[in-house]
Amino acid sequence: MVFDPWSVVTVLFFCHAAIPAFKNRIISRCCCRIALIRRMSGCIAHMTVLKQLIPRSNSVWKPAVRCVSQSAHRKLLPDDYDYDGPHLVTQVPGPRSKMLLESLDSIQNTEAVQFFCDFKKSRGNWLVDADGNRLLDVYSQIASLPLGYNHPAIVSALADESNLSAFANRPALGVLPPVDFPDTLQKLLSRVAPPGLSQVQTMACGTCANENAFKAVFFWYRAKQRGSLIHTEEELESCMRHEAPGSPNLSILGFKGGFHGRTIGCSSSSHAAPLHKVDVPALDWPSAPFPATKYPLDVNTQENRQEEERCLDKVFQLMQEYKNKGRPVAGVVVEPIQSEGGDRHASNNFFRQLRKLAKENGSAFVVDEVQTGAGLTGKMWAHEYWGLEESPDIVTFSKKMVIGGLYFKEEFRPKGPFRIMNTWLGDPAKLVIMEAVLNVIHKDRLLDNMTETGQVILQGLEKLQDKHADILSNARGRGAFCAVDFPDTLTRDRAVATLRNKGVQGAGCGVKSLRVRPALIFQPHHARMFLDIMEETTRELKSLGT
Amino acid sequence: MVFDPWSVVTVLFFCHAAIPAFKNRIISRCCCRIALIRRMSGCIAHMTVLKQLIPRSNSVWKPAVRCVSQSAHRKLLPDDYDYDGPHLVTQVPGPRSKMLLESLDSIQNTEAVQFFCDFKKSRGNWLVDADGNRLLDVYSQIASLPLGYNHPAIVSALADESNLSAFANRPALGVLPPVDFPDTLQKLLSRVAPPGLSQVQTMACGTCANENAFKAVFFWYRAKQRGSLIHTEEELESCMRHEAPGSPNLSILGFKGGFHGRTIGCSSSSHAAPLHKVDVPALDWPSAPFPATKYPLDVNTQENRQEEERCLDKVFQLMQEYKNKGRPVAGVVVEPIQSEGGDRHASNNFFRQLRKLAKENGSAFVVDEVQTGAGLTGKMWAHEYWGLEESPDIVTFSKKMVIGGLYFKEEFRPKGPFRIMNTWLGDPAKLVIMEAVLNVIHKDRLLDNMTETGQVILQGLEKLQDKHADILSNARGRGAFCAVDFPDTLTRDRAVATLRNKGVQGAGCGVKSLRVRPALIFQPHHARMFLDIMEETTRELKSLGT
Repeated sequence: MVFDPWSVVTVLFFCHAAIPAFKNRIISRCCCRIALIRRMSGCIAHMTVLKQLIPRSNSVWKPAVRCVSQSAHRKLLPDDYDYDGPHLVTQVPGPRSKMLLESLDSIQNTEAVQFFCDFKKSRGNWLVDADGNRLLDVYSQIASLPLGYNHPAIVSALADESNLSAFANRPALGVLPPVDFPDTLQKLLSRVAPPGLSQVQTMACGTCANENAFKAVFFWYRAKQRGSLIHTEEELESCMRHEAPGSPNLSILGFKGGFHGRTIGCSSSSHAAPLHKVDVPALDWPSAPFPATKYPLDVNTQENRQEEERCLDKVFQLMQEYKNKGRPVAGVVVEPIQSEGGDRHASNNFFRQLRKLAKENGSAFVVDEVQTGAGLTGKMWAHEYWGLEESPDIVTFSKKMVIGGLYFKEEFRPKGPFRIMNTWLGDPAKLVIMEAVLNVIHKDRLLDNMTETGQVILQGLEKLQDKHADILSNARGRGAFCAVDFPDTLTRDRAVATLRNKGVQGAGCGVKSLRVRPALIFQPHHARMFLDIMEETTRELKSLGT
Repeated sequence: MVFDPWSVVTVLFFCHAAIPAFKNRIISRCCCRIALIRRMSGCIAHMTVLKQLIPRSNSVWKPAVRCVSQSAHRKLLPDDYDYDGPHLVTQVPGPRSKMLLESLDSIQNTEAVQFFCDFKKSRGNWLVDADGNRLLDVYSQIASLPLGYNHPAIVSALADESNLSAFANRPALGVLPPVDFPDTLQKLLSRVAPPGLSQVQTMACGTCANENAFKAVFFWYRAKQRGSLIHTEEELESCMRHEAPGSPNLSILGFKGGFHGRTIGCSSSSHAAPLHKVDVPALDWPSAPFPATKYPLDVNTQENRQEEERCLDKVFQLMQEYKNKGRPVAGVVVEPIQSEGGDRHASNNFFRQLRKLAKENGSAFVVDEVQTGAGLTGKMWAHEYWGLEESPDIVTFSKKMVIGGLYFKEEFRPKGPFRIMNTWLGDPAKLVIMEAVLNVIHKDRLLDNMTETGQVILQGLEKLQDKHADILSNARGRGAFCAVDFPDTLTRDRAVATLRNKGVQGAGCGVKSLRVRPALIFQPHHARMFLDIMEETTRELKSLGT
C-alpha cells in the first residue's frame, strides 16, 4: 500500500476547517500514518503543513516553524527538534523562574542561578525555560551537554530494558565491577583514546579526574625519586604526620588564567579568578604566565612567538626555583584553550615546546581536556592539533564525555591496590549514555559538523567585529569553541543579558569575553541565527551608549 | 471473573508432567494470569509450586527455594528476591571473573578488584557474580547500595516515563536548575534533614561533599576573622599568589583513624591508612587521637571515659598549638563511627564534649555521615544518637543517600555567587532514585528493620566471640552497622576470603576488623544466615591452626 501525502494533507485540511469537533480524533488516528509518510515521502516542505495541523498541548510548540523548510542543511535530528528561531513570551528570567528562585533560595545560595529550565520541553539546541521561553543554547550547560536536549539516541538508550540494570545498581567499580565493564571501557573509552595513552580510569567528575591525575603524577614522581616501587617504612610512617618523605614537598605547575576545579588540590593549580580561590588554603605550587597572544594567531605570529618564549622562559625559571626550594615541579597541567580564564589560545608550537620542557625537567605533562575534549574543537581532543612528538602523559576529561576520568601512559599506572580509588569511581549509568553519544558523533560525523559550524561562527564574529570594532574584538576559536571580547566586564554582562532576552543562552568567561560552547549538533544554520542576534545585541548596546 | 489458584496449579502441573512440548507456550500465556493470582490469592506457600514450574534461563534461579516458606518475617521484597541461602558453583573469583580481570587489567590497575558482578541477575541482598555464584551481600558495594539489587521501587522509578528527562538531560544545577529542583530538594532532602540544619547543597560524591564542607567552613571562619562578608583588595590579590590573607593559614582538625576521602583536602584531614596518603603532598593540619575504647562501651564506661578525656584534652592542646603557630583550627571533622579506620566507636558523651570544645574554640563542627548516614545505624543520621545540645554545623552525606551533599546551618551559607560550585553539583537522575529509596525507607519502616536486624547481628557476634574468644573479639555495632575483630590482618583477610567462598560477601576495615554493611532491606533471617556462615568460617580458620 502506498500513501499519497498530498491527499492526506487535503483530508486533514478539510477536517481542520470544517469539522472541528472530530478534528482531534481523526488527527490522532492519522498520526501513525503521518509518521510513516514522513519517512516515506522525503517531501519535507509539505510536512510543515501537516505539523501545523497537529494540535500540541504545549504553547511552546505552537509558533514553531521548522527550520528545514527555509535552508537546506544536513539533517541531524528529527524535524520537530528544530525551529526557525527563539520564541520569547516573558523576560528571562520570567515570573515563574523568579518564584522558583525564591523557593530554592530558602535552602541554598542561588546567586549564580540564571533561570529554571523545563527539560521535558527542551529539544536539540533549544532550551525551554520555566516560563515557556525557547532559547537557542550556545552554552550547553557549561559546555557539558554533548548532544543537546532529549537527543533521540539518548532517549532510546534509556528506554532500552537491557540498560536498566546499569541505572538500578550503582557498583563500587574499583572492587566489584559489572561483567560488561572491561568490554564497555574498551569499546567506548579506548576507542576514542588520545593517541599514545593506553590506560584509562573513570571518575565521577572533572574535579576528581584532575585531583587523581595529580596523584598519579606524584606516585610516578616519587617512585622515580626513590628508585623503587616499594615504599620505605619511613615514608609510611611520616605520611601519617604529614611530613616528608611520606608527604612529599612536590608541586604541580599551573598557569595564570588556568582552571582545573575547586577542591583544594585543583584550586591550588588554578588561577582563573580570585573568587574561586579566596578564603581557601592553598598549596605552595607555582603558576606561570600564559601567553597573552594576539588574535588571529596566524597573523600575529612574530609577536606571539616572542610572548610565548617569554612564558616558556618563566616556566623554566619556576621549575628551577621550585627545585631549589625543595618543592620540585612533579607535573605541569595546562588546558588546550584556557576556558574559564577567558578563552585564551596559544600556538601549537607553544604547547610542543612546553611538552618538551616538562620532559626535560622530569615533570609529567598533564592536559586538562575537561572543557575542550569530546569534539567541540573539531577533533576529539583539542591537543591533537598540536602535532606533539611525544603524547601527553595524562589527559583528563569530563563534561561532554558524560563521565569524568583520565587517560594515561602505562608508566603512570599506579602500583598496588587502592591507590587511585573512591567508592564509585564513575558510574556505569553514564557509560550507557556515553555509548549513545559516541555512536552519534561517529554516525553523524559531528566532528566535521563542529569544524564546519565553527568556521561559520568564527567568520561571522570576525565580520561583526570589523563592523563594530568599538564593541567587539579578539574573535577567536577552534572548531565551534569560539569567543569574542567586549570592552569590559560590565558591557560583556549586559551583552549576555541582552542576548538572553533576544533568545540566545550564552555565557561569559574571563574578564570580558563571551564564550560560545554549543552542543555537537549545533549546525551552520544555528550559527547564523546566533550571529544575527549577536549583531542585534551589539547594535542595541551601542544605541544605549555602552 | 475469579481465578482459583489451585486449579491453575493443577493444570500447570499436568502440562509440566505430560506435555513437555507445549509446556513453555502454555506457561508463557499463563504468566500474566499467574501474576494476577499472586496478588489476589495472598497464598504465598502455593506460589512456590508455580515458581518451580516456570522455566528460567539462568541456572542461578534453579536451586532457589524461597526463604519465606521456612521462617516467618516481615515481607519487604517480592518472593523471587529471596533465597534460603547462597549458591556456589565455582570458587570466588571463578574462571569468568579471572578472564574478565585479565581483560580489564590491560587498561587499568585491578589489584583491588574482588570479582565481577552480574547485576542483571542479582536481587535484593543476593549478589550474583560473573560465574553464577550467588552470595549474601553484607557489604552492599562499600556500604553504598541502600535497597540491595534491582529493588522493585527503583526499577519502577526508572521505568516511569515522567522521569526520563532527568536521565537524558544532566543540567548545571548551580546555574540552570530544572523546574522541579526546589520542590524535589524540599520534598526529599529537607524531609530527612538532620535537626537544626535548614540548608542543603548537593554534590556528585562524598569526597566533593567533604571538600566543599571544608570550603564552607573556611568562608565562614574568614568572614568572622575579617568582621565582614566583603573581601579586601589585599585578599583578592594575595590569594592569586597563594599567600595570606587571601589564601589563609587555616586548618581542619581530623582524627587518627578518620577517613574523609582521597583528594588533597580530604586526604589532609584523613588518617586511616598510610596507603591512602603516602606520596601525596599534605596540608599542615592537625590530627587528634580517637579514643581507643573498649567494647561493649556500656560495660567499660569508667575506663572509656578516661580514654575519651585524654583524647579531648589532646584536641584542646592541638587547637591551642595550631592557634599559636598561626594556623588556627577553623573546623573539626569527625565520623560518628570511624569506618575505614576500623569501626571505632566512642560514647555519646565524647561527641557531646567534642561539639562543645569546637564551639568554645570558635571552630565549626562537621560530622561526616557519608558511611553512617541514611539509616544503617537505625536512625537516619548516626549523630542523632548523641543527644547534642546544639546540632552540628555541617553534616555531609553520600553512598546510601544515592547523591552526595552537605546539610548546613544558615550561617554557613556561602555569600556571593560561584563560591560553592562545580559544573554538575550532583545529578537530578540520582534524585529520582533517592525519591524511591526514601519512600521505601518510610513505607517499609527500614530504620526499625535496621535496629531489629542489628540486634540479631550484634548478639550473634557476641555469642560467637564468647565461643571462639581466640579468634573473635570486640563485637560492636549500632543498628546493623556492626564489626568484629580478628587477631591480625592476615587472619581477617583469610576470614573475608573464606566467607566469600561460603557465600557471604563481606569486607575488612582498619587493621583487623570485619565490617558488616548490609543494605537497609537486610532482615533478621539474613543475619542468621550470615552468623551461621561466620561460625563455619571461624571453625575452619581454627581447624587450619590460624
